[in-house]
Amino acid sequence: MPTDSRPSIVAHVQVMYFDTDAAAVVHNLAYLRFIETARTLLAIQMGMSFEHIARTQIHPVLTRTDIRYRRPGRLGDELEIRGRLGDVSAARFHVDFEVVRPADGAVLATCQQELALIQLPEGKVIRLPAGFANGFGVDSSR
Amino acid sequence: MPTDSRPSIVAHVQVMYFDTDAAAVVHNLAYLRFIETARTLLAIQMGMSFEHIARTQIHPVLTRTDIRYRRPGRLGDELEIRGRLGDVSAARFHVDFEVVRPADGAVLATCQQELALIQLPEGKVIRLPAGFANGFGVDSSR
Amino acid sequence: MPTDSRPSIVAHVQVMYFDTDAAAVVHNLAYLRFIETARTLLAIQMGMSFEHIARTQIHPVLTRTDIRYRRPGRLGDELEIRGRLGDVSAARFHVDFEVVRPADGAVLATCQQELALIQLPEGKVIRLPAGFANGFGVDSSR
Amino acid sequence: MPTDSRPSIVAHVQVMYFDTDAAAVVHNLAYLRFIETARTLLAIQMGMSFEHIARTQIHPVLTRTDIRYRRPGRLGDELEIRGRLGDVSAARFHVDFEVVRPADGAVLATCQQELALIQLPEGKVIRLPAGFANGFGVDSSR
Repeated sequence: MPTDSRPSIVAHVQVMYFDTDAAAVVHNLAYLRFIETARTLLAIQMGMSFEHIARTQIHPVLTRTDIRYRRPGRLGDELEIRGRLGDVSAARFHVDFEVVRPADGAVLATCQQELALIQLPEGKVIRLPAGFANGFGVDSSR
Repeated sequence: MPTDSRPSIVAHVQVMYFDTDAAAVVHNLAYLRFIETARTLLAIQMGMSFEHIARTQIHPVLTRTDIRYRRPGRLGDELEIRGRLGDVSAARFHVDFEVVRPADGAVLATCQQELALIQLPEGKVIRLPAGFANGFGVDSSR
Repeated sequence: MPTDSRPSIVAHVQVMYFDTDAAAVVHNLAYLRFIETARTLLAIQMGMSFEHIARTQIHPVLTRTDIRYRRPGRLGDELEIRGRLGDVSAARFHVDFEVVRPADGAVLATCQQELALIQLPEGKVIRLPAGFANGFGVDSSR
Repeated sequence: MPTDSRPSIVAHVQVMYFDTDAAAVVHNLAYLRFIETARTLLAIQMGMSFEHIARTQIHPVLTRTDIRYRRPGRLGDELEIRGRLGDVSAARFHVDFEVVRPADGAVLATCQQELALIQLPEGKVIRLPAGFANGFGVDSSR
């Protein structure tokens, strides 16, 4: 990913037994748990904190995950999950991820996720606010 | 477990990759997932269906798990989870479980769980209804 | 999905508490656990049993998951996971899935996964055997 | 837990969506995942690193978990998992845990786990080395 001004995040995780399976590699579901943690931290940084969501009842909802598994991770690996806001349209936004093992530079997985903002309790998809990429609904008066 | 008249359940599961870890055995958390499924099926049988809980807002809540891991399970094992209502007091009930591999009769884990009934939204522990063990809150008039 | 002669599978699951999250819907990871169970059952049906894999050390390995989340599932929902072998190339095969709630016919998720066969311990991708779609490596002489 | 000289660990976690369930609380299994991470970090600190285990094939294996759920955790909570080596006998050791929410000092769960050291591939329980509590099998010559 090129360095640019889009909101981005780096999260770290060490692979635990519960992340692995009997093939002695990181299980495919574990990568998506790592990515969800990174995505949540990115959302918080963009203004979509748990408190903001609870107050506004505007929830970011995952509508698509496209993940490619490239190299196997192993027990004990220290991994870096790099996320960056990708394409933004009227009512959808994307986040691009790489799961990297810094020890040898291996890219274990790449992933793109698509999300929408849903207004609860109606469950209606809403348009992304203007300036979404520069901070979602940050209201400094509160 | 002796055969007796207490409410009981038998659930079946085959061990999948996501149930195992890099030590090539069933991960300790997976047994508790198997047990939760069996416990939920037993609760439904006793009258605590998802619909009943949603309507009454009386929720069975886990207050303690005591599980002993005795023998390792392996990928592909077909397991039987046997649950039975145990001790019942004024405000707590217990469920006893065994996780068995019928192919060789091995007992992989034994577990006792303690639960309470909580009235939401107050969050107050309530007394178990009379005749709890013979069918929780089944009200044929509704 | 049209009815045709490709290998296919239907698996059933009831949504448990551990499948849901605080938004009161089925968590995105849970669908992929449901799908993995269906995929494993399909693999067994096609000849890739746990025993066959252990003996040959030829492992089906997930290389891509593309899942679209269409409608929310809820606690207690009874779901059907329908899987069918999709495109097959020299060294990759695809499986197409739908997660359906028969009670109202809602399609909650659609998913395509890509897999390769890996020969361990070398970790080399191997060509799919001729007639792969009609039964993987079934060798009646053993 | 009293302050003393036994090996101890503090781990931190923020509650994610995948840690919660449809009752809007932290799911009972999630606490045990948090505790496993803390236990693994404590094991590493005591000399049982992933590398040491792989080299010696002496594995710490969980033989019992006794966990009491005291107060519900919520989405977004920042939690502290405090672990400390407990009773040590000839062939078993215990680790005591508390899961605490520093924001209000609530103790959400307390847990005791029992472990044994298993020599693979034989699968035999071995005696704990002398001075176990002061550093497991640390061999400075390697």
